[in-house]
Amino acid sequence: MSTLVVPANVSFVEDAETLRKACEGWGTNEKAVISVLAHRNATQRKQIRQAYWNLYQEELVKRLESELKGDFERAIYRWILDPEDREAVLANVAVKKSSDYHVIVEIACVLSAEELLAVRRAYQARYKHSLEEDVAAHTTGDVRKLLVGLVTAYRYEGADINARLAKSEADILQDAIKDKKYNHDEVIRILTTRSKAQLMATFNGFKDDQGTSITKALLGEHAENEYKRLLRIAIRCINEPLKYYEKVLRNAIRKFGTDEDAITRVIVTRAEKDLLHIKELYYKRNSVPLDQAVAKETSGDYKAFLLALLGKQD
Amino acid sequence: MSTLVVPANVSFVEDAETLRKACEGWGTNEKAVISVLAHRNATQRKQIRQAYWNLYQEELVKRLESELKGDFERAIYRWILDPEDREAVLANVAVKKSSDYHVIVEIACVLSAEELLAVRRAYQARYKHSLEEDVAAHTTGDVRKLLVGLVTAYRYEGADINARLAKSEADILQDAIKDKKYNHDEVIRILTTRSKAQLMATFNGFKDDQGTSITKALLGEHAENEYKRLLRIAIRCINEPLKYYEKVLRNAIRKFGTDEDAITRVIVTRAEKDLLHIKELYYKRNSVPLDQAVAKETSGDYKAFLLALLGKQD
Repeated sequence: MSTLVVPANVSFVEDAETLRKACEGWGTNEKAVISVLAHRNATQRKQIRQAYWNLYQEELVKRLESELKGDFERAIYRWILDPEDREAVLANVAVKKSSDYHVIVEIACVLSAEELLAVRRAYQARYKHSLEEDVAAHTTGDVRKLLVGLVTAYRYEGADINARLAKSEADILQDAIKDKKYNHDEVIRILTTRSKAQLMATFNGFKDDQGTSITKALLGEHAENEYKRLLRIAIRCINEPLKYYEKVLRNAIRKFGTDEDAITRVIVTRAEKDLLHIKELYYKRNSVPLDQAVAKETSGDYKAFLLALLGKQD
Repeated sequence: MSTLVVPANVSFVEDAETLRKACEGWGTNEKAVISVLAHRNATQRKQIRQAYWNLYQEELVKRLESELKGDFERAIYRWILDPEDREAVLANVAVKKSSDYHVIVEIACVLSAEELLAVRRAYQARYKHSLEEDVAAHTTGDVRKLLVGLVTAYRYEGADINARLAKSEADILQDAIKDKKYNHDEVIRILTTRSKAQLMATFNGFKDDQGTSITKALLGEHAENEYKRLLRIAIRCINEPLKYYEKVLRNAIRKFGTDEDAITRVIVTRAEKDLLHIKELYYKRNSVPLDQAVAKETSGDYKAFLLALLGKQD
């Protein structure tokens, strides 16, 4: 469920005028920007961008980029885009930075088949390349095999499950972990092509047999490397995306120096989807409400904007 | 250009009635089936199926399957389906028979990004699996890497080309062929992720440098194997699909015993698209008109149906 608080009546023209006024003159009225944008859903934001263009022949996104700065600017920029366009931007930023490949895994594994396809389309429209092309060109070896397989998937989404297959593929995964061959072609094949429902049955089969989850089993085995890290993230994003996001937030908040990019990413991408559930999970796991934790680690307009997305009433 | 001859006025109800009459009583009136179906485009055939269902609460496809037989039945069955559904059926038949993997390469490399996606959707609707899932489960090693990469591609289709990149990737391909490492990850990466326009620039760069085409260079190098065969087919399907189809027909017709499945496949899948061009290429290359060559190798209703699709007027 969404945390977004949207008023009953919205005038896109008035919103556009408010935003224009906020940007004019000396200094920017960030509060006005937040009061509008943090309380409009994706369809409404699109219409505001359109209304702004019709009124002023200027791109709202560009104007805001030039008016705002720092974490606040990045958060507003990501938020104001259409969801698939935002994910395309996130993927493009991540593909150039190997420490951020988990963002690509997130996008590929959390989104539905149609949502991922929409991101691939948006990516092409924006960058004149395919997402898989850029991922493949920036990576090598096992990491490439895994990432390209994940971003090109168009998984079957029916509920049909083959229990026998789940059993046999759980065995393949067990053998791979036992032999420390996480990078075996079969592991990548299973992870990148099976439907999520089928994979969950496979992971359950693994747990029934081994008494421990596949992610824990992977963690227990010897040295960590980038491929193994991404493999575990892929499994978590497929198996329990909300728990995964809770952990991303927990780590980002706990981290010495705070990982603002991660906080922004989770809040902005999930606010209209399931951030309410993520908040509940966060409270359950940390005994601190998520908005309190975020408030403690952030400041100024950036903080005000995140809290508004988290459901704070003005 | 299409070879299909479609009358100006078509009544779907009358067509459905004609087909019903053709199927009733002792024996089937195959001529009537041909006179209707071989002269209707994909949209019209869909509407005939619908009209038939409305009139008789019976599936036309199933009725025809039970009435007809042999090569004629297979040709009619493939023809009557929606194009994306037909390709899904072809892919599903091919995935189970390793000697037919070239059909999967054809589908993945000749179709546009949106057409291939439509096939993947149709495949899921029909078989409750993804195409890539079945391809991956039936193959191993290099063949799997190549086929899965090709069927999951959603290539960028803009005209933008990076000439420097084409040069450097032509070099990568040259080195791979020189070192007999056709199965190098980089070869597969380039073939499965770059846009067709970019790949054509790369293949041209190869030819400029080496004085011979990449497919000839591949052919010249040592022993043939299944992976290399599929790699060459992929390149030909991307680079010159019409010439590729001409050769499929030429081989199918020349073959001792005639390859009816190949003849049916090319004629049925291309009749509404570019079969006229393929006919021209065939005549140019073989000095025999394609319809004459087909007529010589086939007989009966099957022959009459193929010739009608090839543009023969009744």
